Amino acid sequence: MTYREDVEGLDASILMHARVWEASGHVENFTDPMIDCKQCKARFRLDTLTELVSEKNKEKALKEFDANFFSQECSLDEKFTAILEDTSSSEKLLGLLGCPQCGNKGTFTQPRKFNLMFKTFLGPVDDSANVIYLRPETAQGIFVNFLNVANSSRQKLPFGIAQIGKAFRNEINTKNFLFRTREFEQMEMQYFCKPGTDTQFYEEWKDRRIDWFKSLGMTASKLRFHDHPKDKLAHYAKNATDIEYEFPFGWGEIEGIHNRTDFDLSRHQEYSGKSQQYFDDETKEKYIPFIIETSAGASRSFMAFLIDSYYEEDVKGEVRGVLRFHPKLAPIKAAIFPLVNKDGMPEVARKIENDLRPYLRIFYDDKGAVGRRYRRMDEAGTPFCITVDTQTLQDETVTVRDRDSMEQVRISIGSLLNYFLEKLR
Amino acid sequence: MTYREDVEGLDASILMHARVWEASGHVENFTDPMIDCKQCKARFRLDTLTELVSEKNKEKALKEFDANFFSQECSLDEKFTAILEDTSSSEKLLGLLGCPQCGNKGTFTQPRKFNLMFKTFLGPVDDSANVIYLRPETAQGIFVNFLNVANSSRQKLPFGIAQIGKAFRNEINTKNFLFRTREFEQMEMQYFCKPGTDTQFYEEWKDRRIDWFKSLGMTASKLRFHDHPKDKLAHYAKNATDIEYEFPFGWGEIEGIHNRTDFDLSRHQEYSGKSQQYFDDETKEKYIPFIIETSAGASRSFMAFLIDSYYEEDVKGEVRGVLRFHPKLAPIKAAIFPLVNKDGMPEVARKIENDLRPYLRIFYDDKGAVGRRYRRMDEAGTPFCITVDTQTLQDETVTVRDRDSMEQVRISIGSLLNYFLEKLR
Repeated sequence: MTYREDVEGLDASILMHARVWEASGHVENFTDPMIDCKQCKARFRLDTLTELVSEKNKEKALKEFDANFFSQECSLDEKFTAILEDTSSSEKLLGLLGCPQCGNKGTFTQPRKFNLMFKTFLGPVDDSANVIYLRPETAQGIFVNFLNVANSSRQKLPFGIAQIGKAFRNEINTKNFLFRTREFEQMEMQYFCKPGTDTQFYEEWKDRRIDWFKSLGMTASKLRFHDHPKDKLAHYAKNATDIEYEFPFGWGEIEGIHNRTDFDLSRHQEYSGKSQQYFDDETKEKYIPFIIETSAGASRSFMAFLIDSYYEEDVKGEVRGVLRFHPKLAPIKAAIFPLVNKDGMPEVARKIENDLRPYLRIFYDDKGAVGRRYRRMDEAGTPFCITVDTQTLQDETVTVRDRDSMEQVRISIGSLLNYFLEKLR
Repeated sequence: MTYREDVEGLDASILMHARVWEASGHVENFTDPMIDCKQCKARFRLDTLTELVSEKNKEKALKEFDANFFSQECSLDEKFTAILEDTSSSEKLLGLLGCPQCGNKGTFTQPRKFNLMFKTFLGPVDDSANVIYLRPETAQGIFVNFLNVANSSRQKLPFGIAQIGKAFRNEINTKNFLFRTREFEQMEMQYFCKPGTDTQFYEEWKDRRIDWFKSLGMTASKLRFHDHPKDKLAHYAKNATDIEYEFPFGWGEIEGIHNRTDFDLSRHQEYSGKSQQYFDDETKEKYIPFIIETSAGASRSFMAFLIDSYYEEDVKGEVRGVLRFHPKLAPIKAAIFPLVNKDGMPEVARKIENDLRPYLRIFYDDKGAVGRRYRRMDEAGTPFCITVDTQTLQDETVTVRDRDSMEQVRISIGSLLNYFLEKLR
């Protein structure tokens, strides 16, 4: 469903020309520093060595460095990382370290840049002229289509283009379930606006986006902004913040909000030779729009909602496990149970199921006691359970049981659809 | 919306291990025969040479072949193709042909197999041990997940798993707009059933699937089945048919329906070493299910619906261009117009827009005469246009104009949502 009239949808391609990724800066900058062990040929990401080397070996290696190099507050890991990141000192440290795989000392190559984009070859010849990349983000697909959308949609600035789709990063170390994977789903919205209005929209979108997670039931105290300090901003950003969620393994980014300025469209204009200017027919000005990006990980957000929804409680001496999904997020919206498998109850229940099925995902269950059926739906996060009972056969009403409060209300069959549609708004 | 309770959704990964594609037969068989010109290095698909070589050169080359080799009914192209496909004669024919690019004769290499899967490398080292493939079809992602779904969904045989998603084929010659592209969207359903019931389900799904296209308004006379003759069936198929649509460039496949037998699950069992047997708890039997596949091209079907929907008619001396989309397929479900931009009409129209927006995509338009606004929506395929007029302000009714009949009905604002929901069922 579309809630905003100033945002258009898009489905851009996954395979994109190398030139797009030169313009975006990904060919040059989307890299991790890698080192190889010359002995056993194992390859490591420099910035994960901290996690791989034992505390003892870290301490031993660091003893060779000037103790006064750091202030007292630095942790062992912080010192280690700082020395590794400094090209003037990393060589010495690497020479002192043992390989996490074979244990041999001083056998590391110098750090080299490893590009995180997956590459493939277009056409039958595998040579560099035919290299194309799988998109590492959906954003660039939106940028290169900006004028297509502007010229075909009757939108005027400010407006946004949104896309949900797969992105691919050749991560060396995947971890934390869905948190870091090589193939993942993004949901991004790029908001195009007039230069000078960008700061206002950046602030507005920050508020809107964190409210979106809260409005779908995510625990407010487990959400926070992490503003990027000015000296650590990405090359394209004027302002940037992450929305972070407190996962069981620590705080992690689930969405980034960036003021990308006119960097992207200017670069695509330069690399494509095609003007990316927007003509403002009210002021008769031509300019390259600024872009406010709201880039959420759909996979990560899914995991955050899943974790945030789960709780257990004691009900009459038994543990009740519940996924307290917001009704909008629940995979099954309602379940329907005939109280007993006879007396015409299954037929009535099936009729209700068939009437509701075109509008919402509904699950029919006639197996076992009703109490057990409720529990199964609690575990699947189904917000509503409809039960057809003896009274149904007399007055055409059913009970609707709420997953969280476990309270039941009686509702006439005819008003079920509107009841659910209202809850699902 | 889910209409069937015996079909589950899935979103399998795009990057899959090479072993999956060995099991499926794609590494070995998903190839096109390619030839190179030794002179100019141009590469051609053997089976498209027919299109690339001029009629004159074809005739000249074929003169060297025995005229009695073919019956009289064979066309020039059919003869040409048959000789190319026969390895005992293709070498001679290739020696007689000029290269379509540089014109030099007899410079072609022998045909070689070129695999149509896009490959990439997992991890930082580009060597053959790390090759993975972008899926050339969504089907295998369903097959390898069959037991995951069976064991987590409470489905019993027969049941289906459906998936909409991107697939990738490194086609040498793309053509006919969306008909043959390297990146495309599939929508597939694989129906798992007990051996012996497969033929019945194959027939059922044939009927259901062609009815699906018709039920969404596709012209029945432009749809047909093309049954694959027994001697041309794919290696996995017991029966196969295509649903074809008559595009302006000719009949083309928009969906394939196959009885894949137990071929796929047997192969995955063999290559993975994991049992793919299903335990039938009613009969206490264990067996590998048969699979009926309904594999539709979402991109191709989209193009077919687009082409099929377009028509032009003369209305009072002007051409009216209309996309007669079924309401379910229309990207905008309803437009709302205030008759004039004053007297409180915009406010009422905006309120209706906001009330409907959570349920359906709605487009607000107050630019130009109402007649012009209707025409714009006709071209966009919007099935309903709501107009707020003077009477609306008195009795809270609006007109709803039907795109195809151009007739208008008066409806109370309060009943608009149910009116549209009914039309969109």
